[in-house]
Formats: sequence, structure tokens, C-alpha cells
Amino acid sequence: MTETLDFPGDQPRPSGWLSPDQIGAVRTQVPVVYVDAVPVRVDECGDVVEVGLLLRVTPEGVMSRALVSGRVMFHERVRDALQRHIEKDLGPVALPQIPASPQPFTVAEYFPTPGVTPYHDPRQHAVSLAYVVPVHGDCTPQQDAIDLAWITPEEAVSEAIQLEMHGGAGFLLRQAMAHVGRTV
Amino acid sequence: MTETLDFPGDQPRPSGWLSPDQIGAVRTQVPVVYVDAVPVRVDECGDVVEVGLLLRVTPEGVMSRALVSGRVMFHERVRDALQRHIEKDLGPVALPQIPASPQPFTVAEYFPTPGVTPYHDPRQHAVSLAYVVPVHGDCTPQQDAIDLAWITPEEAVSEAIQLEMHGGAGFLLRQAMAHVGRTV
Amino acid sequence: MTETLDFPGDQPRPSGWLSPDQIGAVRTQVPVVYVDAVPVRVDECGDVVEVGLLLRVTPEGVMSRALVSGRVMFHERVRDALQRHIEKDLGPVALPQIPASPQPFTVAEYFPTPGVTPYHDPRQHAVSLAYVVPVHGDCTPQQDAIDLAWITPEEAVSEAIQLEMHGGAGFLLRQAMAHVGRTV
Amino acid sequence: MTETLDFPGDQPRPSGWLSPDQIGAVRTQVPVVYVDAVPVRVDECGDVVEVGLLLRVTPEGVMSRALVSGRVMFHERVRDALQRHIEKDLGPVALPQIPASPQPFTVAEYFPTPGVTPYHDPRQHAVSLAYVVPVHGDCTPQQDAIDLAWITPEEAVSEAIQLEMHGGAGFLLRQAMAHVGRTV
Repeated sequence: MTETLDFPGDQPRPSGWLSPDQIGAVRTQVPVVYVDAVPVRVDECGDVVEVGLLLRVTPEGVMSRALVSGRVMFHERVRDALQRHIEKDLGPVALPQIPASPQPFTVAEYFPTPGVTPYHDPRQHAVSLAYVVPVHGDCTPQQDAIDLAWITPEEAVSEAIQLEMHGGAGFLLRQAMAHVGRTV
Repeated sequence: MTETLDFPGDQPRPSGWLSPDQIGAVRTQVPVVYVDAVPVRVDECGDVVEVGLLLRVTPEGVMSRALVSGRVMFHERVRDALQRHIEKDLGPVALPQIPASPQPFTVAEYFPTPGVTPYHDPRQHAVSLAYVVPVHGDCTPQQDAIDLAWITPEEAVSEAIQLEMHGGAGFLLRQAMAHVGRTV
Repeated sequence: MTETLDFPGDQPRPSGWLSPDQIGAVRTQVPVVYVDAVPVRVDECGDVVEVGLLLRVTPEGVMSRALVSGRVMFHERVRDALQRHIEKDLGPVALPQIPASPQPFTVAEYFPTPGVTPYHDPRQHAVSLAYVVPVHGDCTPQQDAIDLAWITPEEAVSEAIQLEMHGGAGFLLRQAMAHVGRTV
Repeated sequence: MTETLDFPGDQPRPSGWLSPDQIGAVRTQVPVVYVDAVPVRVDECGDVVEVGLLLRVTPEGVMSRALVSGRVMFHERVRDALQRHIEKDLGPVALPQIPASPQPFTVAEYFPTPGVTPYHDPRQHAVSLAYVVPVHGDCTPQQDAIDLAWITPEEAVSEAIQLEMHGGAGFLLRQAMAHVGRTV
């Protein structure tokens, strides 16, 4: 939930992008469609051996670990949004294996009011389709991320990592590990 | 995808409802979050024995069969939207068994442009979470529906019924029957 | 994984039941098909409010909490096995809502060797289809269970409860809570 | 459901394989755990573009199209069985993407008695976990298969292909296409 939804103000916006005013208005009116991707490395049997977490510094200067996450644009398919956000966050040669089925492992409902669900986003009400996505290529942190760390499933669900994730992302990560049958 | 999204113009709008202008503007800017529910009767082993289809007359005077479908409002949980739309379409004593898990059996992506996906809605881009929902109580068609027909899974996937469904609803119904292990 | 698979030796065996010798031989040769059910109470929106755990005393005299679990018999459908084991463990008026879809939320692979998977059963290799099953009626512990406790999802995933579950049942319970979107 | 479960009689059996007598006895006593894999080619967005079907000649001389299918052995994980059977049927360089999650898209229950479920296997009661598996490498038919045909999802669900599949495999293929959101 750390994506900058607004397009940089000093460039012409491509189709599908909204101005800061437009997205601000939408966010007070309807839930926004999102995707969350948990990037993983798998062995040849499909077993998850590592999870990729982005490291970002929030505007308040706090270090925060994040999943790949972002908005689905008007007239964009969910699978295209998944691919776009993974490329945006992990680079153009991550070689993600976007799932063949659109069935997500869960739906994360981020509410602007804390406590309604386990997920929280002060900016908006987002309904996010969550997928585990194996990546086979080289991944490098992009844009505002300062690092991409590959950790074990056991580390992913540890208290130490959970404390560095915000807005319910840690909970979603635990759900992902439960879904793939690794330690919760 | 037959829901009237606008609140009737001559009444004060409760929180979460948008004016026709507002929803019209939103629909050109972002995908709208929807739920689709396939109401079913099950036997004591959970096996689907009947599927409920609404019969409506479109503004063009065409008879059309429809699933329960509708928008998720701002600050509304998916499970609350499911319950609200089932009550709206099947009446207050349908006793739906809303699924314990938010994982939908599929995600139906209704595009304003036909052919991008199997689903189509000329008014908007809707991303709809689809669920099979057993109902145990009395169901009566509400509002604009002129009938509620209970048919067998075999009838549900027949050509005759498929021809009476529009915008991909027939395809979604077939997917639902495949998901519950009944004839596709 | 606490079910007694053998039929009591002093009664004629109905069709589908195996003698202790027969089931003993099978268990050394092939994986055995099981079902695991997590009985839950849900509110009218389908949200899980309570989880039912059986309390048993193991042959070694240890108190142990367990899910509903048991073998699928020859020529028995999975949904019939689910219903039979829930009735066997929770009584005849539990009114379980057996899922309409056969898709389990996970597959628990109990190995006779500890550590291959998170699940362990010293007696056998069991492949268990796991379901969350809402129950609406009166539940009373049957047979060898000395109690049936209804606890909150938060308690269900707590260390205290996890320590009282064995063979990976605690892990499976956490997976179930993750699947329904409650605390993991 | 066309796998030869017996190990060739003139060779020593590796661990996990049963003699024809042993597997014959087991098959009359308990359901046998199986996996079914629908091999697919996907584009870079994960969308299914082709489905792989094996062509076999039955002992009765009938041409038959089949999915990848086979038994899970004692002390074998489901994901290892999936990989083994795909290699056995498609060759050693098929590069299958075994799913990270053990959650199957459905469970196919093959009964020795026709009509209990949509699936039928005269030899046994098999409970089969079904997965869609993208393959990225070169696939060549092995053993008793005389061809491997790659067809479109539309062809896969056509009457012509359905008539060439037996025991419910055509139904399972339609379920797989429904699951990935392609035509049913």
C-alpha cells in the first residue's frame, strides 16, 4: 500500500492515469481496486524457498518492508496490473510467473478507518486481490525502494519482520505463507 | 451487472451512495468493485441441487436472466455487500450462507469494450468478486425482477439458459457450476 | 489425526470398514485419503466468530486439542465423509454447512516421518483435504472426546492453544484462520 | 486415469512401488490418492494460450486423449508426484511450474461405479487433486503416448475433443478452463 498513485505532476499523463485531484476525489467515493503480489523464489517442485520484501523509507523517515502493491487502472486487466507493478518494483527482467487463474488466495480490504479489517490505509478504501507470484529472473529494487531482501518463509513470519511491515502487510504475508503451506 | 447504481434522485442519499453525476464520473476513471453471487440450494451434503436465476426485462424490452450482482460501496466490507445485494434481490428472509473466506471462486472483469475478457458491461469497467452462496430461506424476487426461477445445474449450463443471459453472466454461471463440481 | 480407523473388533463390520490387519497393511503401502474439518460458528455475514476444538486424552494420558478428522472410505464421496465425521465427533444435530465446492483450502500431508512437511502422523502417510465448516446446530462431544470448546479466532492461534495441538493440527488451524481472513 | 500403476514385473521394484497383487488388493479396500495435471502454455501475463493433451491408444484399440495423471506413492509429497508424472509423460525437459500452493482447483473423485460423480475409473476409487501446470520447456510424449497435441482453450472444450476423452477427463478439462477464466 505504498504505491504513489499520482502520476508525477510535471509530465503528461498517459491514458489511465488520473491527476492528483481526480484520484483524490475518487478515493473519497468508491473503493479502489488493487493487486498485492508476494514475490517468491521456488525450487523445482514449486516449494517456496524465499520471499522478496522491498525496503522503503516512509515520508516520516521510518524504515518499512513492503510487498509489491498497486492500483488496477481503468481498462486494465488484473493480470496486466500484476505484471506492471512487479516490473515497476522489481525491474524489467524479474520474469514473474503471473498465475494462470484469476482466483486470488485472499482479498485484502484496506479501510481508511483502522480496526474494521486487519488491513489499513489512511488514504483510501482499497480492495486488493492478493497473489503469490514466483519470479525466476534478476530482481532489483526500483524507484523509491532502497533494497530488496530475500528471506526465508520462517523469517517472513517472524516477529522481527512483522514489526517492520505496516497497514496489515505483515498479516497478508502470513496469509500467503499459510496458503503455500509454509510456517505461519 | 443489471444493478441500478444510482440512488433514486428524489430521496436524500444515505452515506456511501453517489449521485448519478458522481458515479458517472467515477465510471470513466477507475474500475468499480463489484460482487457477483450465484444463489444455490444445497442438500445436506452441500451438493448443489438448484440454482436461482432472476428474470428481468431490460430497458429495451428483452427478457434476461441474471445473477445477484452489485457494487461494493465506500467503507463497506465485501461480505456486507454480498449480504446487502442478496437481500435486495431475494428478499429479507433468504437466509444466505455468506462464505467464511473472502477467497472468490473467480474474478470477473467486465470491460466496457467487448472481447477483452468474456465479460462485458457497456457502462463501466467492473472488477467483480464471484461467490457461490447457498440460501436456506424463502426467496422472492424484489424490485425490478419479475421472477426468480430455480433450475437444475444441468439446465443452468444449457444453451437455452445461456442464450437468455448477457454480458458474460452465462459464462460466470458455467464457471460456478464447474467450481462446485457439477456439469459444465 | 486422532480417529480410530479400525472398527471395533467385536462387531460385524459394515461395508467400507477394514479389519485392523487390513488397514494396517494398507497404511504401509499407500497414502490414505483423509478429511480435516475446522468447525466454526459464523455471524450473519459469514464472519467466523468461534472455532470448535475437541479435547481428548491420548493413550499416553496427555490432554490434546483436535480438529474433526477422519478417513474417506472406499466408495465414499469426500462430502459424505465430511458429514459423517462431523456427525461422529459433534453429534447428529450439529447442522454442518458442508461446502458446495470440493476445493479444499489446503491439503495437509501427514507423514510418518517428522519434518518432511509441517504435519506428522506416526501411524501412516495421510493426504488430508481440509475444509472450514460452519455448524449451526447443537454440538456435543462424542465418543472419546471429553469436551468441545468454542474459542475465538484470536485464542485459536495463540501459543497456549497451539501447544495443546499435535501432529501439525495447530498449524492447520492457523492456516484455516488465515484463509478466512482472521488473525494468524 | 490411464497410468499403469503396476511396476513392470520383470524388474526389481524401487521403494514405494507395489506389486500387481498388492495394488490390486489396495484398490478394493481404500480410495487411492492421485494427481491430475492440465499442462498449459501461458503468455507473459499468465494467460493460457494452449493446452497439452496426450494421445493414447487404449487396450481396446480406441484413440483417447488424456491429461497427465498418476498415483501419489507412499511417502511421496503431492508436489513431487506432480513433478514425477509430468516428467514421465512430457519428458525430462518440460520445465513445469509446479504450483507454490497445494490448494488444487478441484478434487476429482473417480468411482468404479459410473454415475456417482462425473468421473469414472473401472479399476478403482481414486481421489485426485487437480492442478493447472504451466510448462515452459520442450515436451515430448513418452512411453505409451503416441502424440502430444497443443490445442487452444476453445478447442479444448469443444465437443470434438470432449468425445475423445474418457472417464470424466473431458469434464475435468472444462473445469480447468473455467478456473483459468477461459471459455467453458
